[in-house]
Amino acid sequence: MVEPANTVGIPVNQTALLKDELDIVIPTIRNLDFLEMWRPFLQPYHLIIVQDGDPTKKIHVPEGYDYELYNRDDINRILGPKASCISFKDSACRCFGYMMSKKKYIFTIDDDCFVAKDPSGKAVNALEQHIKNLLCPSSPFFFNTLYDPYREGADFVRGYPFSLREGVSTAVSHGLWLNIPDYDAPTQLVKPKERNTRYVDAVMTIPKGTLFPMCGMNLAFDRDLIGPAMYFGLMGDGQPIGRYDDMWAGWCIKVICDHLSLGVKTGLPYIYHSKASNPFVNLKKEYKGIFWQEEIIPFFQNVKLSKEAVTVQQCYIELSKMVKEKLSSLDPYFDKLADAMVTWIEAWDELNPPATAATAKA
Amino acid sequence: MVEPANTVGIPVNQTALLKDELDIVIPTIRNLDFLEMWRPFLQPYHLIIVQDGDPTKKIHVPEGYDYELYNRDDINRILGPKASCISFKDSACRCFGYMMSKKKYIFTIDDDCFVAKDPSGKAVNALEQHIKNLLCPSSPFFFNTLYDPYREGADFVRGYPFSLREGVSTAVSHGLWLNIPDYDAPTQLVKPKERNTRYVDAVMTIPKGTLFPMCGMNLAFDRDLIGPAMYFGLMGDGQPIGRYDDMWAGWCIKVICDHLSLGVKTGLPYIYHSKASNPFVNLKKEYKGIFWQEEIIPFFQNVKLSKEAVTVQQCYIELSKMVKEKLSSLDPYFDKLADAMVTWIEAWDELNPPATAATAKA
Repeated sequence: MVEPANTVGIPVNQTALLKDELDIVIPTIRNLDFLEMWRPFLQPYHLIIVQDGDPTKKIHVPEGYDYELYNRDDINRILGPKASCISFKDSACRCFGYMMSKKKYIFTIDDDCFVAKDPSGKAVNALEQHIKNLLCPSSPFFFNTLYDPYREGADFVRGYPFSLREGVSTAVSHGLWLNIPDYDAPTQLVKPKERNTRYVDAVMTIPKGTLFPMCGMNLAFDRDLIGPAMYFGLMGDGQPIGRYDDMWAGWCIKVICDHLSLGVKTGLPYIYHSKASNPFVNLKKEYKGIFWQEEIIPFFQNVKLSKEAVTVQQCYIELSKMVKEKLSSLDPYFDKLADAMVTWIEAWDELNPPATAATAKA
Repeated sequence: MVEPANTVGIPVNQTALLKDELDIVIPTIRNLDFLEMWRPFLQPYHLIIVQDGDPTKKIHVPEGYDYELYNRDDINRILGPKASCISFKDSACRCFGYMMSKKKYIFTIDDDCFVAKDPSGKAVNALEQHIKNLLCPSSPFFFNTLYDPYREGADFVRGYPFSLREGVSTAVSHGLWLNIPDYDAPTQLVKPKERNTRYVDAVMTIPKGTLFPMCGMNLAFDRDLIGPAMYFGLMGDGQPIGRYDDMWAGWCIKVICDHLSLGVKTGLPYIYHSKASNPFVNLKKEYKGIFWQEEIIPFFQNVKLSKEAVTVQQCYIELSKMVKEKLSSLDPYFDKLADAMVTWIEAWDELNPPATAATAKA
């Protein structure tokens, strides 16, 4: 039986890693009581809360947390007409927080995610593991059979080219979920009782040229390296699709990371995912995505970005043109999405002027 | 502290899976006392022992095992002039056993590999796990973040294309090692005390287009699907290189599996690898491989087999031509190796005439 960890009695980590260089982004429609459990690990960090739905509703944040909160009115005020690129009534709205942050790293987590236990029963500090993943290199060009070669007690195995052992910078750290696995509606319907109880003690680089289904529930990334590509698309209110926000971002960031020689890691850390969402509601949100993805994924598998695209923004604009050209025939929605991708980049650059970005990097 | 499992008292598995469809191939120069420990799991199977080195030496096989044994004199007698493609004084000679077998599946294991324990302390039946890996499909075209989707308690995650969920046939199962990791000589020299103590409870498909360092210590495969590509090359006596036999086979089988849409799995099962080989001796065997691989791997990454190559043999012959054309400039050794690849296929087809193969498949 999997249960979340009990964190009562664990002191708040006052020497938290990268405390001043990381923001935690949380999309929500309810009180953030789940943060009580995360207090030992997350309280030292600054939160950016993106309130979805009714802006007049008051969201309660547990005491002691430092935060800024944006509701739909704030988004409209800050972005003006460009606010159209930010989804409403869908957790895709979280990407507004990525844009507002001025920090180098982002950790984003859903409000139904609790602290997991490792097999020894110890509470997992998910953010600490994400930071470890982001701070050590990735190895996307050749597979290492003993998983992350940079981890303590591991290395590159015999036959791994020495010229590739320096690795590349890690842009994204994708964490996993114990208890409720991240299944689509059909799988939820078919296997309502399935729980993920297998704790796989591994981190690995997703090889270059391989796409993966990125879940936004437990995710960290380097804003400087990949931020402008972490757009969660147009979902929810007024859109024909939901629950593909993180998938869309995952396909985009992976082809851009591959092009720019950046790494994407998956595996540890686990969070404890408490509650399965309603599969009937999910099916309604997902069903177009379920057949569209059969064409979208081959599209992304064949994306070739040009040599001229050397920044994330340039790559993303090129990608938006390809989306317009190749996917609009699938549904007019992709025409709108391609435009929103451009709006997103314009808004990003407005809020993160290149000069500031350069200073931040220096 | 990692220790091998104690298998005393575990009864021999009389209902062993695929007992009549699998051969165990063991290359050796010494008495096979290590098989005592494997008795509960391996005794029901037939062994093919390839004796390396001095053919007059008598190899002792523990009682109760059913086996056939080939020494160098046997290899020369059976293959005649084609025996030149089988290495001498190197464990690469094991591939002669793959050729002699008439079974559908092969498990090959080194004689310094003992039974590992899982984290609960239970002895790991490595062969049973390999068979599970080979009998369930692979998913090489898209990454599944919860590892093998066909394993109990797991499935495809949200965003995994439904059209790809049937998977493809698994041709190769690559197992791992606790205790002494499979490191190259430089890493052995730098980290003489490193032991692998991390039991990662996962099996995964190596994505299409990604090469990996295949280790021959704990390996199983489907002879019908990939056997003719499992050639371990020219190593050891009279050759400029050693310890690259399994790597060579790994590069070849991976590009051919990718071309023929077959799967390669890695991860479980673990064996307990008892003794590190001498790093100074290893360095002498390996050093040419260490720099050659910097060119060989890009060569394999760029291999494109033709549409006309639809059998493993056809793929392998095409590959041998590319080796001759592209790698001979690196060293005359590759010219000789390319010829040996052709000889290997000729010998394979002689010992496994197509008609027999067709009958076996039917």
